[in-house]
Amino acid sequence: MTGNKRKVEICFTPALYPDFRNDDAIVVIVDILRATSAIVTAFMNGVKSIIPVATLEEALAYKQKGFLVAAERNGIVRDFADFGNSPYNFKKDVIEGRDIVYSTTNGTHCIMLARHSFRVLIGAYLNLDALVKYIVNENRDLVVLCAGWKNKFNLEDSLFAGALSESLLQHENYTTICDSVHASLDLWNLARHSIMSYIEKAAQRHRLKNNNLDDVIEYCHTPNLTSLIPVLKENCLVRLNDL
Amino acid sequence: MTGNKRKVEICFTPALYPDFRNDDAIVVIVDILRATSAIVTAFMNGVKSIIPVATLEEALAYKQKGFLVAAERNGIVRDFADFGNSPYNFKKDVIEGRDIVYSTTNGTHCIMLARHSFRVLIGAYLNLDALVKYIVNENRDLVVLCAGWKNKFNLEDSLFAGALSESLLQHENYTTICDSVHASLDLWNLARHSIMSYIEKAAQRHRLKNNNLDDVIEYCHTPNLTSLIPVLKENCLVRLNDL
Repeated sequence: MTGNKRKVEICFTPALYPDFRNDDAIVVIVDILRATSAIVTAFMNGVKSIIPVATLEEALAYKQKGFLVAAERNGIVRDFADFGNSPYNFKKDVIEGRDIVYSTTNGTHCIMLARHSFRVLIGAYLNLDALVKYIVNENRDLVVLCAGWKNKFNLEDSLFAGALSESLLQHENYTTICDSVHASLDLWNLARHSIMSYIEKAAQRHRLKNNNLDDVIEYCHTPNLTSLIPVLKENCLVRLNDL
Repeated sequence: MTGNKRKVEICFTPALYPDFRNDDAIVVIVDILRATSAIVTAFMNGVKSIIPVATLEEALAYKQKGFLVAAERNGIVRDFADFGNSPYNFKKDVIEGRDIVYSTTNGTHCIMLARHSFRVLIGAYLNLDALVKYIVNENRDLVVLCAGWKNKFNLEDSLFAGALSESLLQHENYTTICDSVHASLDLWNLARHSIMSYIEKAAQRHRLKNNNLDDVIEYCHTPNLTSLIPVLKENCLVRLNDL
């Protein structure tokens, strides 16, 4: 049915990834609030590389080796860490040219799940058009892997997946037979013209607000501030140009 | 945040159910095209009980014990079976007063996953209002468990989950903090006035069409033909009144 066209699929949570695994595909990891938005921001501000780690213990071990470390839980920066996980923490004067560690349980899990694919990219609104351009140029299947929340579907990642799918499906070589894509396209089209008010109902927006961390929501939904794309190289994220 | 209100949650596929398990909740199993629509139809036509089985081997073993058996794969009725899995096969003159076996891999898996909950109900458009009335009267949390397709999200089950959630959330004692519910409500509101054209894009609609089984789609989206609700009792589905 799809002929020789490239497929777009959306995996709403890492728990579903085994049924989406496609080693020839490009996988874009999405955790809009806040991990992937923060990681893209760090590259915008000149970080050299980012090591994603799943646990605070791993983060602490890297800190003891001299790395700069971003680590927080529930909005509280851990005492051993240099700063928290907000995109606003990755300032140029602190991180430029450095190798840093970013503690994110879910994000790291997603990255590791997808590591056998052709390429693992970090996606956010901040680098949306750059992602589309790269994927189309590579002419490969796309799996969007949403981090979700504790293995559950979330709105903010699915909306972005819809935005990314829409851009890709405008290219004639891309198609989809994935119901998750159809749903995400429809949700994106409902939300796109008033994303800040739509996102009001998202559970993660309330979690951030409860921890006074919701100042980043508008920033994390700003499109195309950069053409940089973080990519997985061994266990480390680097700029695509440094691959 | 939710106070003492009852919660509505939607689990898009059985692969996600471990994170939704709530033993005090009512779980409604949904497989609109076609298992749960067929099971509700069988009760409308007077079946006494239905034993859901996951494999053709189990179905054959029951056949050898004298049960009527519905069993097909990819649209082909198995040679040992009495009829296939379409709702249209469960005719009153054949099944009235009988105990029958229904072979459905995914449906049986969902039913067994949810068996520890307060009550496992079989849901379809055909008995939508009856479900709402019963759940509100019991005043318990609701988890809608969508059968999906091979552990993936599907449109037709999610739309129904949105319809059911919408009706329940009109009762002041029900609330939600589940992003899957918000998404399903929005999709349902997009689709509700032209469900047959909306469902055109669903992958399962194309699968049924390819097997010439798509004559049931409109019937499976017809609301409130019955007030009967099939419920799990041990390993068997019976009418709620016979519980």
